[in-house]
Amino acid sequence: MPPVQNAVVERGRKMKASPFPMIEPEEATRLIAENVASPALSDTETVALIVGKGRVLAEDIYSTVNIPTFDTTPIDGYALFAEEGRQEWQVIGEHLAGEMGYLRVEAGTAIRIMNGAPLPEGANSVVMVEFTNETDNVLSLSIPVKAGDNIRHIGQDIKKGQLVLKAGTVMGAPELGLVAMVNRASFRAYRRPRLGVISVGDEIAEPGDLSKPEAVYDSNRFSLAAALTDAYAEAIPLGIAPASKEGLRTMIMDALEIYDGVVTSGSLSVGKTDIVKDLLEELGTIHFGRVNLKPGKPFTFVTAEINGKRKPIFGLPGSPVSSLVSFELFVRPAVLKMGGRAKRHRPTIQVQAEHDIAHAADRNEYVRAIVSQQFDPETRSYTFTARTTGAQNSSRLMSMLEANALLRLSPDPHAVKVGSYMTAVLLNCTEI
Amino acid sequence: MPPVQNAVVERGRKMKASPFPMIEPEEATRLIAENVASPALSDTETVALIVGKGRVLAEDIYSTVNIPTFDTTPIDGYALFAEEGRQEWQVIGEHLAGEMGYLRVEAGTAIRIMNGAPLPEGANSVVMVEFTNETDNVLSLSIPVKAGDNIRHIGQDIKKGQLVLKAGTVMGAPELGLVAMVNRASFRAYRRPRLGVISVGDEIAEPGDLSKPEAVYDSNRFSLAAALTDAYAEAIPLGIAPASKEGLRTMIMDALEIYDGVVTSGSLSVGKTDIVKDLLEELGTIHFGRVNLKPGKPFTFVTAEINGKRKPIFGLPGSPVSSLVSFELFVRPAVLKMGGRAKRHRPTIQVQAEHDIAHAADRNEYVRAIVSQQFDPETRSYTFTARTTGAQNSSRLMSMLEANALLRLSPDPHAVKVGSYMTAVLLNCTEI
Repeated sequence: MPPVQNAVVERGRKMKASPFPMIEPEEATRLIAENVASPALSDTETVALIVGKGRVLAEDIYSTVNIPTFDTTPIDGYALFAEEGRQEWQVIGEHLAGEMGYLRVEAGTAIRIMNGAPLPEGANSVVMVEFTNETDNVLSLSIPVKAGDNIRHIGQDIKKGQLVLKAGTVMGAPELGLVAMVNRASFRAYRRPRLGVISVGDEIAEPGDLSKPEAVYDSNRFSLAAALTDAYAEAIPLGIAPASKEGLRTMIMDALEIYDGVVTSGSLSVGKTDIVKDLLEELGTIHFGRVNLKPGKPFTFVTAEINGKRKPIFGLPGSPVSSLVSFELFVRPAVLKMGGRAKRHRPTIQVQAEHDIAHAADRNEYVRAIVSQQFDPETRSYTFTARTTGAQNSSRLMSMLEANALLRLSPDPHAVKVGSYMTAVLLNCTEI
Repeated sequence: MPPVQNAVVERGRKMKASPFPMIEPEEATRLIAENVASPALSDTETVALIVGKGRVLAEDIYSTVNIPTFDTTPIDGYALFAEEGRQEWQVIGEHLAGEMGYLRVEAGTAIRIMNGAPLPEGANSVVMVEFTNETDNVLSLSIPVKAGDNIRHIGQDIKKGQLVLKAGTVMGAPELGLVAMVNRASFRAYRRPRLGVISVGDEIAEPGDLSKPEAVYDSNRFSLAAALTDAYAEAIPLGIAPASKEGLRTMIMDALEIYDGVVTSGSLSVGKTDIVKDLLEELGTIHFGRVNLKPGKPFTFVTAEINGKRKPIFGLPGSPVSSLVSFELFVRPAVLKMGGRAKRHRPTIQVQAEHDIAHAADRNEYVRAIVSQQFDPETRSYTFTARTTGAQNSSRLMSMLEANALLRLSPDPHAVKVGSYMTAVLLNCTEI
């Protein structure tokens, strides 16, 4: 054990409080939105449909074809000329799907036709096979038939030249099918934003490293990489930062050279050994360094000008819950914007407290909670209630596990009383 | 143009209606659930945390460590021995995060301490730096201090030996962080189900193939691959099936040898050239071949015994909307089950029609719709209304684009009247 006095003499200087003014969460959101840009049209790439899920379209898609390409039918049956009083038709052939049409029907004739096959010239109706009888090439029907039944006209679903998808559309299953349908195998998409993920802190060790039984294992790297992936970004895990300020500077600068931004976690608190904020001040503009928020107070937002581009550095707190909650509130909407997405906000609803909820007297608090739905069959209306996921200390990642919502609570020395109302951010639904 | 009579003689046989009884959608769901199995414990693999998002845990995770590993503090400040009447403390050193503790405080002494550093022996409280003043190694406080403040006790968040995650958990950001935190870099997960995707139909052409201006371009492959990915499965696009029954048989059998199942689309209707159902009958057991449903009536569910394993073949209709809607209703829950997921059903809510909605008189119909939410500030309750996405013919993929819900309508010759209630399946929220 080294002599006590030495420690004070060699390492000591006074502890200092954060030099950054405390800003409100809404102001933090505004500053991030102002300083993080949507992608430029030069930031696009060609993407094959088969891997296109979740990408954002960077061009308008116009149809080069009529859908259907010719008059056809959506059913299997008989195409014929329907006319008043006619009971029987002579079957003169058939049209299959995938073949060009070549037959023509006239009064008193019909052909067999498959779903998707070309309608024969002269036909004005198609009758479903279930309602027909064919004997010796003579067709009779068990239902009345009228002109126009079961015909899909050329261009009925999509017209040649029609705008089918607008730039900015998020590509899901139907959108990808639609691009294929109008005869394209790929589309122009915004590049997915790529963000380096760096864990900072002398106490942090690699999980699985059994040589450091008293270390804090790096959990944020994995949580944040998953959260970035969930925000349709590419996460590049850069590992644990070197202990020196110079080492960290090199790591961040190297990442910013290549990637679109950096997410750090840890070492943001006001202690004297914390180097991240000092470093960030040298690297770029610190837009804010403290938010009136629990958890997430030390969240820091910086932009740096690199090769003529403004790139964000999101400095997240080290506590696992603080880093995930501030990611959800601030980084996720920013990353969605960087990816070209218009919908960037989770739905919110009003919920009623199932029990008293103690919360911070002096800070806005986002409490992890389970929201349940109640249905009133009389008014056919829904109400929602919420209970917390237990102890809410910022190190307790278990409090996030079951949570499907964050409760937004304003500073108040008194607990939220059972039955009171508050706003919940729903975590299980896509952005609106 | 070939002589008409030839077509009849050479190719003709009578059209036939479907030989399969029409079953109700609930019965279809039950038969699929009965015949598609959850993964066996032998179907697991080791997955690194960094790529673990969305995987399903196939083991119970117990903590091998206490979290925190030692008594510590969640703040930066001073650790001291708090006692009645004491105003000043001598600062005798400091504890940093990432170092072993070595100091001891007694009555009248304090040390500087960083968030995450070990609490010194003898300390019973930690005071936040904001509320302190240190001059010439003498500490005074601007707030009262009491024993127990700001201490995180060893094992407070997680105890050594504690079960932290149960097998079956879906791994999201907090879950992955939690596994890292208890000093693991990987976990045992169920294999993702792998399904071959085959498009069937002589009329189908490869999108981008400009040599076939009148073809129907294969859109289902891309839609279904995206929908499978969205159901956390791996989609293997096998392309367009050969026109011959033997070619298709080989393609399906080859796929079933390797993959966990097959999804086909197209050629399921009752026309005489449709070969898929005949073939499926030879390959395995057809559990059903017709569902009382619009769109999706010809949806066919088959299982085949391959190398001692029962593997599903989902035969989807060819119409783009029919294939996606029947995927959503039947294949998605089955694939989620194959992936080891317990939550397999989208949330449903009661919604009120914004306009009259015409629907099938003789079949259950799932109508694509946009559900909106209304809030009543007086009762703090929510009601939901729905409008359809326009013409609902099964070829019109545009009807899926804006849809955030499917309206479930029972057979009825009368339209649903504006203001009536019905059930909506919400497509934008995760399974519950």
